[in-house]
Amino acid sequence: MSQLYASLFYQPDVTTIFSDQALLNYMIQAEVALAKAQAQVNVVPIAAATMIEQVGQSALEKIDFDALAVATGLAGNIAIPFVKQFTAIVKQHDEDASRYVHWGATSQDIIDTATILQCRDALGLIEKQLHSAYQISLQQAERYRDQVMIGRTWLQQALPITLGHKFARYAAAFKRDLDRLQSMKDRVLTAQLGGAVGSLASLQDQGSAVVQAFSAELGLSTPECTWHGERDRIVEIASLLAMIVGNVGKMAKDWSLLMQTEIAEVYEPTAKGRGGSSTMPHKRNPVAAASILAAANRVPALMASVYQSMVQDHERALGAWHAEWLAIPEIFQLCAGALERSNEVLQGIEVNVDAMQRNLETTQGLIMAESVMMALAAKIGRLNAHHLVEQACQQAVEQDTHLKNILSNLDEVKEHFSAQALDQLFQPKSYLGNIQAQIDAVLQAAQGDSK
Amino acid sequence: MSQLYASLFYQPDVTTIFSDQALLNYMIQAEVALAKAQAQVNVVPIAAATMIEQVGQSALEKIDFDALAVATGLAGNIAIPFVKQFTAIVKQHDEDASRYVHWGATSQDIIDTATILQCRDALGLIEKQLHSAYQISLQQAERYRDQVMIGRTWLQQALPITLGHKFARYAAAFKRDLDRLQSMKDRVLTAQLGGAVGSLASLQDQGSAVVQAFSAELGLSTPECTWHGERDRIVEIASLLAMIVGNVGKMAKDWSLLMQTEIAEVYEPTAKGRGGSSTMPHKRNPVAAASILAAANRVPALMASVYQSMVQDHERALGAWHAEWLAIPEIFQLCAGALERSNEVLQGIEVNVDAMQRNLETTQGLIMAESVMMALAAKIGRLNAHHLVEQACQQAVEQDTHLKNILSNLDEVKEHFSAQALDQLFQPKSYLGNIQAQIDAVLQAAQGDSK
Amino acid sequence: MSQLYASLFYQPDVTTIFSDQALLNYMIQAEVALAKAQAQVNVVPIAAATMIEQVGQSALEKIDFDALAVATGLAGNIAIPFVKQFTAIVKQHDEDASRYVHWGATSQDIIDTATILQCRDALGLIEKQLHSAYQISLQQAERYRDQVMIGRTWLQQALPITLGHKFARYAAAFKRDLDRLQSMKDRVLTAQLGGAVGSLASLQDQGSAVVQAFSAELGLSTPECTWHGERDRIVEIASLLAMIVGNVGKMAKDWSLLMQTEIAEVYEPTAKGRGGSSTMPHKRNPVAAASILAAANRVPALMASVYQSMVQDHERALGAWHAEWLAIPEIFQLCAGALERSNEVLQGIEVNVDAMQRNLETTQGLIMAESVMMALAAKIGRLNAHHLVEQACQQAVEQDTHLKNILSNLDEVKEHFSAQALDQLFQPKSYLGNIQAQIDAVLQAAQGDSK
Amino acid sequence: MSQLYASLFYQPDVTTIFSDQALLNYMIQAEVALAKAQAQVNVVPIAAATMIEQVGQSALEKIDFDALAVATGLAGNIAIPFVKQFTAIVKQHDEDASRYVHWGATSQDIIDTATILQCRDALGLIEKQLHSAYQISLQQAERYRDQVMIGRTWLQQALPITLGHKFARYAAAFKRDLDRLQSMKDRVLTAQLGGAVGSLASLQDQGSAVVQAFSAELGLSTPECTWHGERDRIVEIASLLAMIVGNVGKMAKDWSLLMQTEIAEVYEPTAKGRGGSSTMPHKRNPVAAASILAAANRVPALMASVYQSMVQDHERALGAWHAEWLAIPEIFQLCAGALERSNEVLQGIEVNVDAMQRNLETTQGLIMAESVMMALAAKIGRLNAHHLVEQACQQAVEQDTHLKNILSNLDEVKEHFSAQALDQLFQPKSYLGNIQAQIDAVLQAAQGDSK
Repeated sequence: MSQLYASLFYQPDVTTIFSDQALLNYMIQAEVALAKAQAQVNVVPIAAATMIEQVGQSALEKIDFDALAVATGLAGNIAIPFVKQFTAIVKQHDEDASRYVHWGATSQDIIDTATILQCRDALGLIEKQLHSAYQISLQQAERYRDQVMIGRTWLQQALPITLGHKFARYAAAFKRDLDRLQSMKDRVLTAQLGGAVGSLASLQDQGSAVVQAFSAELGLSTPECTWHGERDRIVEIASLLAMIVGNVGKMAKDWSLLMQTEIAEVYEPTAKGRGGSSTMPHKRNPVAAASILAAANRVPALMASVYQSMVQDHERALGAWHAEWLAIPEIFQLCAGALERSNEVLQGIEVNVDAMQRNLETTQGLIMAESVMMALAAKIGRLNAHHLVEQACQQAVEQDTHLKNILSNLDEVKEHFSAQALDQLFQPKSYLGNIQAQIDAVLQAAQGDSK
Repeated sequence: MSQLYASLFYQPDVTTIFSDQALLNYMIQAEVALAKAQAQVNVVPIAAATMIEQVGQSALEKIDFDALAVATGLAGNIAIPFVKQFTAIVKQHDEDASRYVHWGATSQDIIDTATILQCRDALGLIEKQLHSAYQISLQQAERYRDQVMIGRTWLQQALPITLGHKFARYAAAFKRDLDRLQSMKDRVLTAQLGGAVGSLASLQDQGSAVVQAFSAELGLSTPECTWHGERDRIVEIASLLAMIVGNVGKMAKDWSLLMQTEIAEVYEPTAKGRGGSSTMPHKRNPVAAASILAAANRVPALMASVYQSMVQDHERALGAWHAEWLAIPEIFQLCAGALERSNEVLQGIEVNVDAMQRNLETTQGLIMAESVMMALAAKIGRLNAHHLVEQACQQAVEQDTHLKNILSNLDEVKEHFSAQALDQLFQPKSYLGNIQAQIDAVLQAAQGDSK
Repeated sequence: MSQLYASLFYQPDVTTIFSDQALLNYMIQAEVALAKAQAQVNVVPIAAATMIEQVGQSALEKIDFDALAVATGLAGNIAIPFVKQFTAIVKQHDEDASRYVHWGATSQDIIDTATILQCRDALGLIEKQLHSAYQISLQQAERYRDQVMIGRTWLQQALPITLGHKFARYAAAFKRDLDRLQSMKDRVLTAQLGGAVGSLASLQDQGSAVVQAFSAELGLSTPECTWHGERDRIVEIASLLAMIVGNVGKMAKDWSLLMQTEIAEVYEPTAKGRGGSSTMPHKRNPVAAASILAAANRVPALMASVYQSMVQDHERALGAWHAEWLAIPEIFQLCAGALERSNEVLQGIEVNVDAMQRNLETTQGLIMAESVMMALAAKIGRLNAHHLVEQACQQAVEQDTHLKNILSNLDEVKEHFSAQALDQLFQPKSYLGNIQAQIDAVLQAAQGDSK
Repeated sequence: MSQLYASLFYQPDVTTIFSDQALLNYMIQAEVALAKAQAQVNVVPIAAATMIEQVGQSALEKIDFDALAVATGLAGNIAIPFVKQFTAIVKQHDEDASRYVHWGATSQDIIDTATILQCRDALGLIEKQLHSAYQISLQQAERYRDQVMIGRTWLQQALPITLGHKFARYAAAFKRDLDRLQSMKDRVLTAQLGGAVGSLASLQDQGSAVVQAFSAELGLSTPECTWHGERDRIVEIASLLAMIVGNVGKMAKDWSLLMQTEIAEVYEPTAKGRGGSSTMPHKRNPVAAASILAAANRVPALMASVYQSMVQDHERALGAWHAEWLAIPEIFQLCAGALERSNEVLQGIEVNVDAMQRNLETTQGLIMAESVMMALAAKIGRLNAHHLVEQACQQAVEQDTHLKNILSNLDEVKEHFSAQALDQLFQPKSYLGNIQAQIDAVLQAAQGDSK
């Protein structure tokens, strides 16, 4: 991944978690926890575990990265050469302790556990971002609950909504993502420890006790059995991230369309150096949207890779496991990047009230035809009303005039509606159905949430 | 989809749910529920609702399918021409009632709600399949808990496991899928009713009451707000199915590899006309595995489409929504087909105990080198043991003889182990670590489950 | 696939080619060609081949579809039970001839060859569609070469283009697709005949002669060697289709955006029952675009499946091959459907010249700022011009007035430009660069093409 | 992308081409070529172009990477801040020349052209790798043309082939990839220069001349029209790479299966630190295969992203274009990595002739049943032969004895075949059909190729 593009697509804290440095650090954590767990159940000497823990604290600085990179290519995974180097580093301090490094474990135990630790920490950050997104959306739903704008379907103007309703729908989506995150945590944040084939054979009858102590040491849940070849946990994490990206992708799509020059209803917040064009002063490029939409293009494809990689062979797999190593970090980084940008935009969005009003007028009253028809129906019957309004609409289009101008001249209308009353029927805000009730329900659910 | 391939890739009950006929039937259910809900809150006359319900019971037979197919191409969705036909059918019975058909709803309300009803019923079937899969795996885990076989990693023989351990791992995966299904049901099985832009404008202040009655009528949860453009529920359903397919894909991969002529440890159950070859009498094709692996190739790709389609525009979208209509039924059908076939195989799997034993002997004792080394280490120290066994392995390979033959001639070994004791160390069953404890934990979790 | 959706997403002729009936017919063709080829090189009796050919002509009617569907599920492919039925049908006429049915072939030979025949015929139709698309685009490029409209980048108004330029770019893309199609035909439209493992062992030293005669009989190219496990030909075909879908997807995206109510520059051609809304008279839904965009969402995902399925094992594969059977027909049908709809729209597109003009005015001259600056630069130097125009733009935005109004009051401008000359600089058609030359180059390339 | 994994999945030269440094260098090349082209047609002063070229030679060292990374996030692409920095660097030398930097171009022109230059250079390397792959496969096809091994279908033993035939099929696939590469080069290696909306408006009537000179300067073909929004060229490049990866993925799948402990017919070449396991001395992990299979899992998914990104809006797009930036480099790097590893393995593959022979014996003659039947058929009629051999096979399986033992006791067999003749029929090499002719055809095609 280009460092130049990191600022465009990623979020720095999550990117740090998936750096080579951090990965090694998580692997050291796993090895230290393993030694400590084994000391607890008397599988390795306490002194050895203590030494491994102590050396682990500064081992990262002593890792020879270049040698590691080369050896990874030959070994087929990062853990084999890492364990060699880490063992050698421990050996420099205490030859005896070094014999207990990685005791009973297989390289996949360390890589999978380190991956889960990365996921845990990155999910922690994403949960914060999601929580912000939810709060921001709720606030904006409340703030703009009465800000009328045209609703659009199939990219066509349809009937009026309010901007607050849009935000309420976004908020509800973020809440569902938060709920999903909660409900999966215990299931997926689980330690991996099985040895070569999942049996922890070299630990003899101590295997299960070590797994339990190891999981506790790392603050992860204890798996009932090894899951070297059953990757649904990893996939479940990724699938949540992909849903989040899809949800914010939808939002970015909305605001990028609303930023179109001819529509101009909202804008991404301004920042120096963002989105302007020196030779085209009227342009205001939706830069954040571009980044998010790129993520929403990429993550679904990466998910295909992740699902595909579930088809693993036997006790520990070839190739399918390897494919995860590249896809999972990328999905996390794109998700965090998309959330960062969408939070910034949702929070700072600039709303052009005049443009919203102007666009409500674009069709010269046609968007309110249904509203008028409903009111007329109560007076002259639904069939008559439908017929009358339909004809009036045709005339308005033909004459390029406002629908109200046509209707206000019709006897059937004049008989039942004063000019003022007719004006009222053409007010978009008078035809918003249960939008306020929906916003209230979304706000209500949030209160339930924070109880 | 070819009908010829349906028997190879699909499961008939789930396929029926996604047939054109059934889709129309679900749409009729949605229209009937809408009328009844509106009658409950006095939005439409009770008589009209009653008539709509009554006509609905036999409306399917009166639908002109050919006309509907043509009109769908022009209208861009199936609901617009369906509502026209359904209204006309009601009108034949009662012109007044026909005016209340589809009252206040938009075509997407009916399609989305029908889709959710399809998902509910299909998920019901898949839940049953999953439950069977879980029970079968548990039974086989128990049955084969002591059936030793070689564990394989990176497609290489590694250390012994038991077949029961493999099944226990499968069972644990199925349990996680069942847990996921439970935890998402309320969230995703939700009615859709919003009218043109989600405001139910034409229902004025009755919108929320109608949504609640409509949801109750259908046995679906009531959404806080419309979700025409926020598709994460649909995606969440699909993502569970994809995880299930991935899990059974892994199993099919396993047994297809184990059925290789040179390995021959298990077989798909026999059936007339399945997997044989008249000119090659020794062949036993893993037909079920082929079907499942094809599903596990396809579903991940379909998920890319589904995630991608979350990026919808405005209040109701163009194209992205349409893409769901083809992907979701396909994913459901492939998942149900994969589960049907895997259940049949997991249940009826033929186990070749002799081949398992023979394959344990393939390496002439090398797979037990670690076991021997551990035992020796307790007597002569770990470093000495490692050195001695390593050399013995090299000699065994060079002389193409059994490792035991080399070791039994070494003084260091003879000193500490009788011939019988050495034999014992080469027993694969003596080096299974905590496999039994893991199987017990998986069985235990199932008991907790059924409480 | 729902028949109801076929009219929305597919094209009937191509769908027919991929029907179950047609597939069986192609398989019969393959069996007949095999018998004839073998008769030519004296591998089977001429009488047998003649009889097989004769029976083949009406065999389709005698196939028991239901039995075939059931047997396919057990056999794992359609050819095994088909060959059984076809042999039985021949046997009813001539027991001796029936012994030579499918002589020396494997089921994959027949399925692959039938697939290639389907591809050939479907590619023939798609080539016609592509050719139409190219011609239509060329004609529209010429027709609208001077029709000025605003060009848009990042969904923002940028500088003027002409509608003809847009069509010229589309035409160039279609030409590239046609070129690709030509350059791959010989490579991909190749017969498959290898027997069980690609060796045609039972034909002894006649294998290569039979392959050559078989290919000639079917009008396909002769492969140098069997390609049961090397699937790049199938993938290359699909990848061309996916590029076509991507290209027309881009066009559908364009016109769906241009149909937005606020933009309204072009419309899909009208047809009864298409895209209208009874309660929202102003709506004009881009129905064709929705269908094409759904295809452009789905086909990329299906490609992931197709590329993935290249990873086949050994001489003939398990699962990966099966996945093709579902993906390839779907890709073809979606491609043909997308082309049919896009051709209809490109041909019949309604152009709203007034709206194009109106949108050119939206920014009150800002889109012409660069044009004015370039002209001023020639008089007062580039830096001065840039500074002056930049300030004028700011003032125009602040005062909500036309940029020309600001500029026409500036001495530096008045000194060098009459009111008329300034008017001229604000004409979008005066700032079109080399657009006409590009259109000419595209038209020129087409003439070269038809030589 | 982790640097640690680069040695496992990538190839260093291609990775270098897609580094940030190299990308900037290609962008400098594009800017220099633009200035030179414009000088040639008198659009900018020759002195300015000369200065820009001169400064360009060392500009890379002066770029402030950190500032660029930050600015890219705000600007939404790398070219905008790059052009600013590059202009400033030129300005340090010559203020006048700096005014002509990036003259008339848009940021996408520079990024797209730089991308094409990257593609050209990386394709050059990949062409070399492909050529090697082809040559190696041809050599191995010749070397092992008589090395008999069992052919496998559906993972089951089927009939004998030779290892050379396998290599011949691989060679034919590589040749097709080379042919594809040749046939697309002119079409895809094309310069991009269109200015803001593709019109090169600010160059007035010089646009086309500049494009031609610019293309010539860079050694790229001249496009008939701008292709900012028509991305099929980029996609076509990627699709070739994906086909290559699929083809080598198939090979890696083959050899990883052949390396299974129980099969052991071939091995990846040994290297220190590769694939061994200290505690499991018998293991020989297919490390290269794991890497290639991971690529073959990932690239198809990345292709879904690339195809999807063809759906671009208007003259220059939002998001879809951005998605390319991450996918294309990744596809190139994975392809080059996969080719590097597969070339190493194809070249150095270790063949275990004994294991091939042993596996041919696994079924105790059943794999030769068809061969025997064909020979008997010539003597006693096909029906009798079939019946007799079928029964013999059943007996052989039941008695767990060699088929030959059964047959050699039958009068019908003894009558026509001496023990020696029967032995001969059971020789796998006697039943290889036209394999040698196929190998010859593949070798022949190569000679045609090098003419």
